[in-house]
Amino acid sequence: MTGTAAQVAHVGLGAIGREVVRLVLRRSDLDLVAVCDISPDLVGTGIGSVLDTEAPDHVSVVKSLGDASLDVAAGDLVVTHTTSSSLTRCLPELLAAVEAGAHVVSSCEELSYPWVQAPEAAARLDDAARTAGVSVVGTGVNPGFAMDYLPVVLSGATKRVDAVRVLRVQDAGRRREPLQAKVGAGITTEEFERRVAAASMGHVGLTESAQAVAAALGWDASDTTETIEPVVAEMPTPSAFGTIEPGRIAGIDQVAVVRVDGVERVHLRLRMAVGIGPSQDDIRLTGEPDLHLSVPGGLHGDLATAAALVNTIGSIRHAEPGLRVMSDLRPPRPAPERR
Amino acid sequence: MTGTAAQVAHVGLGAIGREVVRLVLRRSDLDLVAVCDISPDLVGTGIGSVLDTEAPDHVSVVKSLGDASLDVAAGDLVVTHTTSSSLTRCLPELLAAVEAGAHVVSSCEELSYPWVQAPEAAARLDDAARTAGVSVVGTGVNPGFAMDYLPVVLSGATKRVDAVRVLRVQDAGRRREPLQAKVGAGITTEEFERRVAAASMGHVGLTESAQAVAAALGWDASDTTETIEPVVAEMPTPSAFGTIEPGRIAGIDQVAVVRVDGVERVHLRLRMAVGIGPSQDDIRLTGEPDLHLSVPGGLHGDLATAAALVNTIGSIRHAEPGLRVMSDLRPPRPAPERR
Repeated sequence: MTGTAAQVAHVGLGAIGREVVRLVLRRSDLDLVAVCDISPDLVGTGIGSVLDTEAPDHVSVVKSLGDASLDVAAGDLVVTHTTSSSLTRCLPELLAAVEAGAHVVSSCEELSYPWVQAPEAAARLDDAARTAGVSVVGTGVNPGFAMDYLPVVLSGATKRVDAVRVLRVQDAGRRREPLQAKVGAGITTEEFERRVAAASMGHVGLTESAQAVAAALGWDASDTTETIEPVVAEMPTPSAFGTIEPGRIAGIDQVAVVRVDGVERVHLRLRMAVGIGPSQDDIRLTGEPDLHLSVPGGLHGDLATAAALVNTIGSIRHAEPGLRVMSDLRPPRPAPERR
Repeated sequence: MTGTAAQVAHVGLGAIGREVVRLVLRRSDLDLVAVCDISPDLVGTGIGSVLDTEAPDHVSVVKSLGDASLDVAAGDLVVTHTTSSSLTRCLPELLAAVEAGAHVVSSCEELSYPWVQAPEAAARLDDAARTAGVSVVGTGVNPGFAMDYLPVVLSGATKRVDAVRVLRVQDAGRRREPLQAKVGAGITTEEFERRVAAASMGHVGLTESAQAVAAALGWDASDTTETIEPVVAEMPTPSAFGTIEPGRIAGIDQVAVVRVDGVERVHLRLRMAVGIGPSQDDIRLTGEPDLHLSVPGGLHGDLATAAALVNTIGSIRHAEPGLRVMSDLRPPRPAPERR
């Protein structure tokens, strides 16, 4: 609720987390005050050395927020958090941040709309945040922007929405290796079936995006279904793991649907596979009037997730206290960089 | 800041205003409690009769808010306001609404970003709103959404924005008669020059949109220029005023630019003419990465302005007190209708 620079403490130095820290260091409106990671290899190392850049080493990695000596005015501290997709795993870290008086912007996919899938964790975090007078949100490009925030924004220009359809296509061949692994690039169809049955593959957060859209538009989000089908390579396709032979898996075709009284209201389809291009984001609203929005080339998953997190720091500082969802927040946006 | 239904008092029963009232009556989350218009022909008439619909006549038109007997809890009253493009003309009405304890959503184009063009009026309204603990915003589809809110939203997926370019094309042939008059449909090029010199034609709010985008992205908006060029009919073109002969004016090509240290940062171009279709909205961000967003068919000006106003009622109730701009607010969105 202030115009002063935000003091940023970052938790989690995976690939996205390092990109978040790089961006925070570039931004003129943000000061990096702490960096946390549980890896013994990193604790005690200066952040410039961790990033392998000329970034200053004035901040050294500590194991957890409790080990950081933070001297920051209330409302000025924001924790950016990138450790896990699982809300169960993140919850203790999120509660620690809130209890330290920090607003939180997290990449935890299950946090983006936890009210249906994890109502108890959501209520606990919401209570803690209200008590501390801070705000918490889960975001990123997807979930958090492309398939949920953007369609809600578009609905602002309609008198009435009857149904929301989103198609997101991401050519996994242009994404980093963990993404190609996540979509099963190169595995057999049998292995694909096994992993789907074990719920150990696919994009985390599609159900949450669908429920976030439904809730923003005033629809009951409890009747949500999600399916994952394989995208099978039709020709030899180069990938991070070598050539994918025809008949092997190139990626996923994942759909989440919210129905209200049996009527389909939200339909989100994510096609993420090696060689599937061109990438695109496509949103269609049926209503009064119908509307169509297109992002040719698509919003880049990795690049945009770090950006979306850092750009949301300003938005979370102006939010009402409690556990928030993105559609509660003013639009995230970048700020000028340091000269 | 509450989940209860908003109580809506509407001021101004022009074409857009009547559409706003129709929408409010349809919405399950809104209750219409008063309607105001200065026209003696309307005062005392039931709103159903004014709208020529089966809408209930439980609310009769009064001359001003002061004549309405409002018994509404603080924070629940929202005034929707559609009387004039001129902030000077609207200011007394806006101050009266704020002093009555109402949040305000107004279609006044000059209110959408008044901080550079009308800083004294802006400060006065901001002070009054903070004192009353209410929030005020000027919005609509343009200004308020297509050429300002939407590009700011898109910037949320970028690490850095260097420049924003927006092209909005509206086929005035598909719009209502006042719009065709506003763009000079059918007049001579001499008359066009005369009206431009007298500042009596063109779209009001383009400069405000450009400044709103600049301010949201952290750029100084004081160096803004605006130009209006004619779109001349090349063939006989049907319009609301009869056929436009070749050589006569079909509409306008209006551009607003914000420069910072001589570098062009925001470039908004609005082409609004009879027979100019297809309508479209096109946003291009230069930055890291470049991004392109397109709304094929465009956001309909008249339909979407009434929708944008009503959809912002929920957003303004959750805003911080004071004079706000749209990029401060959570995305506007429709709610389910009454059954």
